[in-house]
Amino acid sequence: MKNLIVGQSGGPTAVINSSLYGVVKTALDCPEIDKVYGMQNGIEGFLKGTILDFEEALPGDKLELLKTTPGAYLGSCRYMLPDDLDDETYPKLFAKLEELEIAYFLYNGGNDSMDTVSKISRYAERVGSDIKVLGVPKTIDNDLVMTDHTPGFPSAARYVANTVREIVTDASVYETPAVTIIEIMGRHAGWLTAASALARRFEGDAPYLIYLPEVDFDLDDFVKRVEALLKDHNAVVVCVSEGINDADGKFICEYDSATGVDSFGHKMLAGAGKFLENLLRDKLGCKARSVEFNVSQRCSSALMSKTDQEEAIMAGRFGVESALQGETGYMIAFDRVSDYKIECSLQDVNKICNEEKKVPASMICDDGTDITQEFIDYCAPLIKGNVEVPTGEDGLPLFAYRTK
Amino acid sequence: MKNLIVGQSGGPTAVINSSLYGVVKTALDCPEIDKVYGMQNGIEGFLKGTILDFEEALPGDKLELLKTTPGAYLGSCRYMLPDDLDDETYPKLFAKLEELEIAYFLYNGGNDSMDTVSKISRYAERVGSDIKVLGVPKTIDNDLVMTDHTPGFPSAARYVANTVREIVTDASVYETPAVTIIEIMGRHAGWLTAASALARRFEGDAPYLIYLPEVDFDLDDFVKRVEALLKDHNAVVVCVSEGINDADGKFICEYDSATGVDSFGHKMLAGAGKFLENLLRDKLGCKARSVEFNVSQRCSSALMSKTDQEEAIMAGRFGVESALQGETGYMIAFDRVSDYKIECSLQDVNKICNEEKKVPASMICDDGTDITQEFIDYCAPLIKGNVEVPTGEDGLPLFAYRTK
Repeated sequence: MKNLIVGQSGGPTAVINSSLYGVVKTALDCPEIDKVYGMQNGIEGFLKGTILDFEEALPGDKLELLKTTPGAYLGSCRYMLPDDLDDETYPKLFAKLEELEIAYFLYNGGNDSMDTVSKISRYAERVGSDIKVLGVPKTIDNDLVMTDHTPGFPSAARYVANTVREIVTDASVYETPAVTIIEIMGRHAGWLTAASALARRFEGDAPYLIYLPEVDFDLDDFVKRVEALLKDHNAVVVCVSEGINDADGKFICEYDSATGVDSFGHKMLAGAGKFLENLLRDKLGCKARSVEFNVSQRCSSALMSKTDQEEAIMAGRFGVESALQGETGYMIAFDRVSDYKIECSLQDVNKICNEEKKVPASMICDDGTDITQEFIDYCAPLIKGNVEVPTGEDGLPLFAYRTK
Repeated sequence: MKNLIVGQSGGPTAVINSSLYGVVKTALDCPEIDKVYGMQNGIEGFLKGTILDFEEALPGDKLELLKTTPGAYLGSCRYMLPDDLDDETYPKLFAKLEELEIAYFLYNGGNDSMDTVSKISRYAERVGSDIKVLGVPKTIDNDLVMTDHTPGFPSAARYVANTVREIVTDASVYETPAVTIIEIMGRHAGWLTAASALARRFEGDAPYLIYLPEVDFDLDDFVKRVEALLKDHNAVVVCVSEGINDADGKFICEYDSATGVDSFGHKMLAGAGKFLENLLRDKLGCKARSVEFNVSQRCSSALMSKTDQEEAIMAGRFGVESALQGETGYMIAFDRVSDYKIECSLQDVNKICNEEKKVPASMICDDGTDITQEFIDYCAPLIKGNVEVPTGEDGLPLFAYRTK
């Protein structure tokens, strides 16, 4: 018997379950694979013995719902395997894998999940296990190296572009000048914030300033630029990454928490957007508000990108096919072979797991307040295509859920 | 010549332009009406002379785009006409209306806009003008009296229900206990926050607590309830109105600003959700985050309710038909004639403009932490139906814009 097990780890995305679908559907259709298992709550849950059998959990057509279900159907974890391959966790883990007669191990996640793939594949090699271990990438942060982009980023980028356009539309209805600061996810890499540029309908349209963590953020310069913009525009919309930081590397969102306490003495923790909103109101006396995109940017099914969904499924399918061909220790990567066509390839997971891909200088304007055409050309194809989400009679989307 | 003019005022909604479409389309198709004008930025803009002609601004099929364009196509204002009908503004205003040969005046907005309709219709009566003045309602707050509900509320409610469900799905992926506080618009009326109950898939599902401004909010009781919930659930999701307030009527969001200053000495202004997040972290030492739904709940085109869109268009159409029949001084209202069928009626705008409809006690649970089945029965039909938003090749929605 040769069984397959798949797990999910790290923060959810709109299409991580599309990748899961790609894995499970391919594996179920494959005569060489017998059982298709899912680990609940990633490797941490697996070590506790919580698994499910997909034929029982999502029989027949129910599996299709995975393609439009945000979150992580299998549940997630933020558990790192020990660095030391001599740790007792590994024999325990492999005993469980053997017990379940697992021949193929696929793990769906970001950087930390690729670290798990790296460790398990290296341990397998060391003990002479012929289990095939592969990583299927996902992260809205788009910060994995050796791949054109990561599944999950395009849908998040589509959410950002769409929602920024809607907010600009909303903000433009009044004649009273006002500033709207939109805070977008991205602690160290600004890919998702950069996608706000796609909201523009014409050259010079809002957002007027785009700040990424890759560039030192200067408070005084920011205030001056907004002051100048307020002279020409009534709706000044600015997009910032949550991780914007000053020349010393200090996060702008930490400026608050240094001494900020509320009237009850609780330490105030607010975001970079909220801080800048208060700063502008204080320095310029202008109307200002901030909007934090928060979790919706990673779990909106309504704004899922069709391109993203198809590629996420393809990555899952390619993972299973590669495992069957005997490949191990790789992450499924995307190569852009033409504009726009993506093909899957295998990349050494050990070279990926501890790296972080930032937005390159060539995609950022010289003054650090906008992105260049190179980024637009890179990102624009990713957000194309609507996905119709199955909706119940109650007007709410139908998602796939594990029964407890 | 008999011309019609229409304006928009107050905060935008997802379907205020659907109502505008209903007005303009009906008027353009109507042989009794010659020109169809729009006032830009409401009555304030009209007084400055900024108007447009719809046949030039949105010729042919372009008009159709209004049906899926959020924001306020004509621009908005927050301008109140003088209470004193002897004020010089009125003769000035009426001179402009006469100059444009306006026979029908339709104004699309919330409470304050109905105040404008009241004043203009009363002034018309006083000076013996036979101009017909009618109000077409909109507000996501659903706080207008003498109508079953207001256009704009259903789409916002659909956004809330969908997005809460997605956030619950996202929050449920981890096993580590954590609290998510979702802050929803509604300063005085909790209708929109109540709609979060529609996110539940089964009895006892998240959100576990729902707090409206109609009920006195007690901090200690809140902390105790969350503490108890954390014993049974890993993802404790709570929904609060932005306007929750204590027994003295003090807004919870004001607890912050009393002494809260950041490290630069700027006064901190955060929302109720952010305050409660910090409170829980401090009191219970638990993981906590807050999500503020912000402007997207009123301008999301992707989650527009089909029911809302159709009713908004119907209200606009009924407004024009009523004006043609000689009616004046009314607001178009919705009567629920069966479950579920809406018919339009005319209600005295003078009785509406200074009232505010709150969520009645019968729709709120006795302990004030949830809503009752009566609310579900009331709200559930409103959020039904998907609207397909025309999308450009770039993957972004196509909206109608005024050319500057």
